[in-house]
Amino acid sequence: MSVLVGVIMGSQSDWETMKHACDMLEELGVPYEKRVVSAHRTPDLMFEYAASASERGLKVIIAGAGGAAHLPGMVAAKTELPVIGVPVKTSTLNGMDSLLSIVQMPGGIPVATVAIGHAGATNAGLLAGQILGAFDPELQQKVRARREAIRLTIESSVL
Amino acid sequence: MSVLVGVIMGSQSDWETMKHACDMLEELGVPYEKRVVSAHRTPDLMFEYAASASERGLKVIIAGAGGAAHLPGMVAAKTELPVIGVPVKTSTLNGMDSLLSIVQMPGGIPVATVAIGHAGATNAGLLAGQILGAFDPELQQKVRARREAIRLTIESSVL
Amino acid sequence: MSVLVGVIMGSQSDWETMKHACDMLEELGVPYEKRVVSAHRTPDLMFEYAASASERGLKVIIAGAGGAAHLPGMVAAKTELPVIGVPVKTSTLNGMDSLLSIVQMPGGIPVATVAIGHAGATNAGLLAGQILGAFDPELQQKVRARREAIRLTIESSVL
Amino acid sequence: MSVLVGVIMGSQSDWETMKHACDMLEELGVPYEKRVVSAHRTPDLMFEYAASASERGLKVIIAGAGGAAHLPGMVAAKTELPVIGVPVKTSTLNGMDSLLSIVQMPGGIPVATVAIGHAGATNAGLLAGQILGAFDPELQQKVRARREAIRLTIESSVL
Amino acid sequence: MSVLVGVIMGSQSDWETMKHACDMLEELGVPYEKRVVSAHRTPDLMFEYAASASERGLKVIIAGAGGAAHLPGMVAAKTELPVIGVPVKTSTLNGMDSLLSIVQMPGGIPVATVAIGHAGATNAGLLAGQILGAFDPELQQKVRARREAIRLTIESSVL
Amino acid sequence: MSVLVGVIMGSQSDWETMKHACDMLEELGVPYEKRVVSAHRTPDLMFEYAASASERGLKVIIAGAGGAAHLPGMVAAKTELPVIGVPVKTSTLNGMDSLLSIVQMPGGIPVATVAIGHAGATNAGLLAGQILGAFDPELQQKVRARREAIRLTIESSVL
Amino acid sequence: MSVLVGVIMGSQSDWETMKHACDMLEELGVPYEKRVVSAHRTPDLMFEYAASASERGLKVIIAGAGGAAHLPGMVAAKTELPVIGVPVKTSTLNGMDSLLSIVQMPGGIPVATVAIGHAGATNAGLLAGQILGAFDPELQQKVRARREAIRLTIESSVL
Amino acid sequence: MSVLVGVIMGSQSDWETMKHACDMLEELGVPYEKRVVSAHRTPDLMFEYAASASERGLKVIIAGAGGAAHLPGMVAAKTELPVIGVPVKTSTLNGMDSLLSIVQMPGGIPVATVAIGHAGATNAGLLAGQILGAFDPELQQKVRARREAIRLTIESSVL
Repeated sequence: MSVLVGVIMGSQSDWETMKHACDMLEELGVPYEKRVVSAHRTPDLMFEYAASASERGLKVIIAGAGGAAHLPGMVAAKTELPVIGVPVKTSTLNGMDSLLSIVQMPGGIPVATVAIGHAGATNAGLLAGQILGAFDPELQQKVRARREAIRLTIESSVL
Repeated sequence: MSVLVGVIMGSQSDWETMKHACDMLEELGVPYEKRVVSAHRTPDLMFEYAASASERGLKVIIAGAGGAAHLPGMVAAKTELPVIGVPVKTSTLNGMDSLLSIVQMPGGIPVATVAIGHAGATNAGLLAGQILGAFDPELQQKVRARREAIRLTIESSVL
Repeated sequence: MSVLVGVIMGSQSDWETMKHACDMLEELGVPYEKRVVSAHRTPDLMFEYAASASERGLKVIIAGAGGAAHLPGMVAAKTELPVIGVPVKTSTLNGMDSLLSIVQMPGGIPVATVAIGHAGATNAGLLAGQILGAFDPELQQKVRARREAIRLTIESSVL
Repeated sequence: MSVLVGVIMGSQSDWETMKHACDMLEELGVPYEKRVVSAHRTPDLMFEYAASASERGLKVIIAGAGGAAHLPGMVAAKTELPVIGVPVKTSTLNGMDSLLSIVQMPGGIPVATVAIGHAGATNAGLLAGQILGAFDPELQQKVRARREAIRLTIESSVL
Repeated sequence: MSVLVGVIMGSQSDWETMKHACDMLEELGVPYEKRVVSAHRTPDLMFEYAASASERGLKVIIAGAGGAAHLPGMVAAKTELPVIGVPVKTSTLNGMDSLLSIVQMPGGIPVATVAIGHAGATNAGLLAGQILGAFDPELQQKVRARREAIRLTIESSVL
Repeated sequence: MSVLVGVIMGSQSDWETMKHACDMLEELGVPYEKRVVSAHRTPDLMFEYAASASERGLKVIIAGAGGAAHLPGMVAAKTELPVIGVPVKTSTLNGMDSLLSIVQMPGGIPVATVAIGHAGATNAGLLAGQILGAFDPELQQKVRARREAIRLTIESSVL
Repeated sequence: MSVLVGVIMGSQSDWETMKHACDMLEELGVPYEKRVVSAHRTPDLMFEYAASASERGLKVIIAGAGGAAHLPGMVAAKTELPVIGVPVKTSTLNGMDSLLSIVQMPGGIPVATVAIGHAGATNAGLLAGQILGAFDPELQQKVRARREAIRLTIESSVL
Repeated sequence: MSVLVGVIMGSQSDWETMKHACDMLEELGVPYEKRVVSAHRTPDLMFEYAASASERGLKVIIAGAGGAAHLPGMVAAKTELPVIGVPVKTSTLNGMDSLLSIVQMPGGIPVATVAIGHAGATNAGLLAGQILGAFDPELQQKVRARREAIRLTIESSVL
């Protein structure tokens, strides 16, 4: 099956966070690719990656970055595909800088921003699944089943 | 054409912000519906709206709210469709409360969060268009043409 | 004696914080129940819990949650009982997100918010005791005696 | 009917905010009193007010203050009644200072904190009504009817 | 020599911070006393302490507290002596709550606020010394000599 | 009577805030001088002003500044007199930048920081009066009388 | 004389801020050019502008942007020239978002960030002048003379 | 070769951060000097250092400081050379205080501010190299080569 989601991140150190997006995509059986692409250190690669994503068959891009996190917004500027931004937690400002740099995009170029850190990365994978699932009943059913299983776990949990 | 996007908001006063999402959907020719649905004041209506959205044919929900902005996250809890959250600017904390209430969702239930206020609402409409456009070449082309027009305007602007 | 206070929390990991509310209720001899109820992962259970609380004889609900902490506000939307919200500390934003998500409720649906974390949970139990104590002289006396004991401890403390 | 709720505020300028608490109490038919009591400028009056509140028959105290808003917490230190704190919006920090000064109480002395400003004051009155209503079915019914009326208004609102 | 400075703190756990104020006073040879006095848990003791401070011969009060740190401001409300407030670092909001609760006093009741934590406590002791030193040339000379010694240490430091 | 308090500010635009400090000093009958002294634009004047303040007979310096508000801290570095810092409200960050720049001094050089803006300036004048009053019973009595008058005004205020 | 400084900004609405940078360059007699270049809406133009700047003879680039302000950082990624970033004040978060998006660059690609808004833009022009002036004694002398004139104005100002 | 860059810091404890600036200058082969110079504890040394920097042949000054970080701004007030400010991370406010104290300079005295902490210090060294490189093709070529090497490393990184 062709790759539908591209997972990119600004540096290798973001992998600890971003692997949770990949874990979720695997759990949902969504074919994906992953790669380090840095807005600041590999700007041309970033532009090529974004500009060619649609014709390569990708439907969604997930981009994680920390600090002055320009990767999601710049990728969004070079593709018409929906881009999901994951603010990576930073050692100084805890990811508040990442969050504002990603979410406060100007009118015209949206980034679908999720929570800071681990939970956000998990949700980025899941959001990609829900976007694809809106057009893929089988995948949507997987999302539904996953939720149902979690619901049962929580309802039976004992304190 | 059947309605593809549902635009909801927590109170009538959010319309001033959320109309920008509707304006964008109209510009892109995406059929949508709009409604006031309050998480706190019409909780049952909210659950019904969210739970029935998929079978009614919606593909994306855009939800705007301010302060302890629970609407996007609670709608997301009751549908497998992608939900876009718009943090409405508040008179006290400028929408920082809305932003954190919407974006900091726990793993398992994502909300695709956009910028605070007017620009965010515009981008919510556009993001819905890009999600639909990933599966609708004609719509994706409209997004592309819109960007191209803006590019030309900016490149020819004189200070 | 029938249960008067319901203590709920969004996930099992909140127990470390919320047990301090239960400890206080036990210290005051207030009958309570405790349960994991998630706004996002068990939304229907949450609504049933809240909607039936009053007829089940509860007088106060204590709800703890972290991040986009929707549990206290959504429970408040489904019951006329007073709801006390405990912002659980988060690993990224230290509970500032939880605090704003809980306290910034719109006019019409109040949540009685206490401090972030451990101290807040303790105070949630105590506040429940004070609310009940306003109509139960014996319980109010227990609160008074507890304070008196603490006062004596502090006044005799040596640096 | 004897007075059940005391509404106090740190300065006359807080009245613009705190009148919304009084409006709500009047709407619910809850007998209340109102007064300027300043923690910093009338500390002895404040202590007398708080210490005598219970024996005067009050069941709930609502205290509003801005900036280094010590009034709610200090009143709470001198009474076993539940104290609701309203953070008044400030011209410099928008009430974030008021919020933190009120909500971050140490374990042992809770303040039931509501939202910053107008909405918070409204909710303080309503929360007092809900606390009293937990022991007064007629009052609880008024709260329920009020919610029902608002629900109908919202459900019939047209954008 | 009679005691000139009173060092008080809201709880025993503040001692780790506040001992730095005492260390400085000892270094400067300023006679002081120290005590746990809690605004919330020993309100009457606090008022007595503040109200009698001037007649007992104190010239400056140093008060440290964390969270909704009401001690410095309430002591200031009950004495005409200058009160120095030390914001103690908190586990949740790092002392930003303490700082705003102490510094944002209303017109009429000042608190001389210093930095959050250890450095602030040291400086509280030093500020007390400088206040006394303005009327005590010998003490002022000690402050000057201390600075000179530090200056020499820094100028000779090697990286 | 010789000048006891020096009131300085970083720019002429700070006068609107700092005049409240001067008003208070006049009300208390404390002889003072006032001057624009800029840390960044007149650094040598600032050093001379601070270094000569003590021998010119000043007992307290009040310094107001906004943004990267270095004036209070740098003056404090060049005098052993107590320095009171007033954070002036800024158009961008509302004075939060001024507050942190003034209050977060390193161990060794304290600045007695008051609230942001108008109330802080008033309190700076009053704090200077309280510092002087600790050694001047007549002045201390004026502070006491002023408080008493305010107390009476508040206690007789009608809502 | 050939153009030495390029002043660019993300949108025409930034001109109100950025004209202060241009005013300063004119005052110093530094030849400059100005242009709207948007990171998100004209990404290719931005890359071309940055990549060709050095060979066109520019020595410094000044880039102003607001919100998720990616322009300065992305330009810096495509040129070895020093890039000065001006955070434009935003209607929602007052430019705190712009500041963090510009200043929190990862190791490897610096942006020389100045203050938010008008003052920052003025200083961007001046900083460019100081950078050039380090290699141009005549220009450095102009900076010195300008400071001297301001010093005299402040020293003679009357309150 | 004569020293071109002066690296100074407010205290020895800043060395752990500031050594990254020195490492970068060594990597680029830029001759530099380093020294502890404290705005608050060695104010006269600071002024002498800044005032003599230009005539000693320095072209750029890098100044790191934490908290009420006055060093960069005060050095900038005493030299026409470009000054790069590095906000050192603080134990209480994570360096947000340092950042605002350094970046929010008033119009007339710019400081070129970089990111908080380690990354910022690295970038300060690099920014100094880029400033010098604008007038030194060989150095500019070193910066370019360094970037190219990093680009290759990132492009070949495997997750």
